[in-house]
Amino acid sequence: MPLEALRHEITPLGLHYLLIHFDVPDVDSATWRLSVGGLVRRPLTLSLEDLRTRPTVTMPVTMECAGNGRALLSPRPVSQPWLLEAVGTAEWTGTPLRPILEEAGLNQGATEILFTGIDRGIDGGIEQDYERSLALDEAMRDDVILAYGMNGQPLLPQHGAPLRVIVPGWYGMTHVKWLRSITVLDRPFLGYQQAEAYRWRTDEEDEGKPVTRMLPRSLLVPPGIPDFFTRVRYVVASTCLLEGRAWSGWGPVERVELSLDGGDSWRDARVGDPPALHAWVPWTFEWTAQPGEYEVCSRATDASGRTQSVDAPWNLKGYSNNAVQRVKVIVR
Amino acid sequence: MPLEALRHEITPLGLHYLLIHFDVPDVDSATWRLSVGGLVRRPLTLSLEDLRTRPTVTMPVTMECAGNGRALLSPRPVSQPWLLEAVGTAEWTGTPLRPILEEAGLNQGATEILFTGIDRGIDGGIEQDYERSLALDEAMRDDVILAYGMNGQPLLPQHGAPLRVIVPGWYGMTHVKWLRSITVLDRPFLGYQQAEAYRWRTDEEDEGKPVTRMLPRSLLVPPGIPDFFTRVRYVVASTCLLEGRAWSGWGPVERVELSLDGGDSWRDARVGDPPALHAWVPWTFEWTAQPGEYEVCSRATDASGRTQSVDAPWNLKGYSNNAVQRVKVIVR
Repeated sequence: MPLEALRHEITPLGLHYLLIHFDVPDVDSATWRLSVGGLVRRPLTLSLEDLRTRPTVTMPVTMECAGNGRALLSPRPVSQPWLLEAVGTAEWTGTPLRPILEEAGLNQGATEILFTGIDRGIDGGIEQDYERSLALDEAMRDDVILAYGMNGQPLLPQHGAPLRVIVPGWYGMTHVKWLRSITVLDRPFLGYQQAEAYRWRTDEEDEGKPVTRMLPRSLLVPPGIPDFFTRVRYVVASTCLLEGRAWSGWGPVERVELSLDGGDSWRDARVGDPPALHAWVPWTFEWTAQPGEYEVCSRATDASGRTQSVDAPWNLKGYSNNAVQRVKVIVR
Repeated sequence: MPLEALRHEITPLGLHYLLIHFDVPDVDSATWRLSVGGLVRRPLTLSLEDLRTRPTVTMPVTMECAGNGRALLSPRPVSQPWLLEAVGTAEWTGTPLRPILEEAGLNQGATEILFTGIDRGIDGGIEQDYERSLALDEAMRDDVILAYGMNGQPLLPQHGAPLRVIVPGWYGMTHVKWLRSITVLDRPFLGYQQAEAYRWRTDEEDEGKPVTRMLPRSLLVPPGIPDFFTRVRYVVASTCLLEGRAWSGWGPVERVELSLDGGDSWRDARVGDPPALHAWVPWTFEWTAQPGEYEVCSRATDASGRTQSVDAPWNLKGYSNNAVQRVKVIVR
């Protein structure tokens, strides 16, 4: 998502970020079925029509790639080289997961729910369908849905059609696309995308910690006009309304601060209301821009007390780098 | 566009490539107006509603960025580092340009039509609105339209809403987005995007030649499954239907050939019918895939006799590199 699209509360179709591990699979939604199995009393097989006739929920959710900010780390971990554009807020439409699990009937000892996609490839030398699990209590949250619609339209192929999981607050790897099965487990899932990938590690020997919820982040609409190559921004001296959006998977964003000197000093921005519990909050800051060179930064702090650091916390795979954005601005 | 999307005759929303020189501008289509001026007898000011009530044309057009293939050149020219994904075919809806120019009434001596966008920035040290011109006879072609719709929906912000030019057969820089004015000129337009950028030059001293129509290119849907990091493809030994699409701005594609050995030997693929005059043609090739390592290439030849080379024709800015695609495939 180019950052000027932060103007939109709901990211327009085609601007929401995409991270596709393998290929966008070729799925016929008419013959596609979702299987619900594992440690359940009544395994289910559901068609898209079955899912559409169940209770419907529509909710805006901000989703960010766990690798957002990776290309700003030095040395740069080799994977998708995101700067800061791997985010978006869509209005997802689907049906809650919990009633489906309840209908299937969890057997005693169930502890995890595994979501398996149709997308298949090789990662870390292992051939696999893309799959990730969630702890049972997380999967049973009211706001975890199986989505078949986005921004009022049928889910697009690249966003996981016919069905994907939406787990508000978590980084994007959790929202498994092209879902083909849900499996109830009684032990931790140790597949590649859970036990190897998406762990915050300092080196190859480090067992690491799982990457889960989105750390707080604020981004601003780059002011003025850009230089094509450097992307430095040029602003005419005047009153300039800086605006942006901020989010966190650990609690509501309570404060957004603005720095014009690369993080040496900070002033409070005015924070608005989010369109929904799990969507980004808008913020504004009225800047009397005088001629000179500036490095504009913003940082968010959430209700849990988590905030953004000025420097990048390096890690082996380049996950969850929520260091503050730095926008070089020349006021003329 | 990830290349597996070549499966679609019309590229789904959100998968058509985007090249945005500056920012996606913030345009209110209700107050937006198109001005038609310069060497005309009756300057016009048209609203979106005015344009929508004029005769409507819908046509599929394949569009490719002039920089597609740039990142495969060595040394790599520094600009948007496209591999081969900068292409798409959309169904554009709009109104023909020629009747609008005729209504405005061209003065004697008119030779060029200049299209100016709302998007503004600095390129090559020059502050500018993005603008490009076309020779009068090219602009007066029946199939040049002003488009306000794409794939049956209103034009999306990132594709140029509320209005863009569509010039079938030409590289993407010609299809000016966020159009705000059309100006009739009696001399060559010498703005940055015409006289400096988009010229095929071998070095800084070379005056170069303008980049215009799309050279022929064929791309294939990568077969089998990918390795996440290397993108090498793995195929199970079997009969494998290779498929892809091919296009050229210089004439209909008449032949597509397939190589399994990196371009040493070639066999004809079966070429289907294009959905429209200016849209890509589908092709297929039935491959009896035996275990081994392959480098799969395809090449298109058009009615003008133009074809694709096996090696990349290097140029300073990395334009129109239509060297054949190389897909490494391991059959197991």
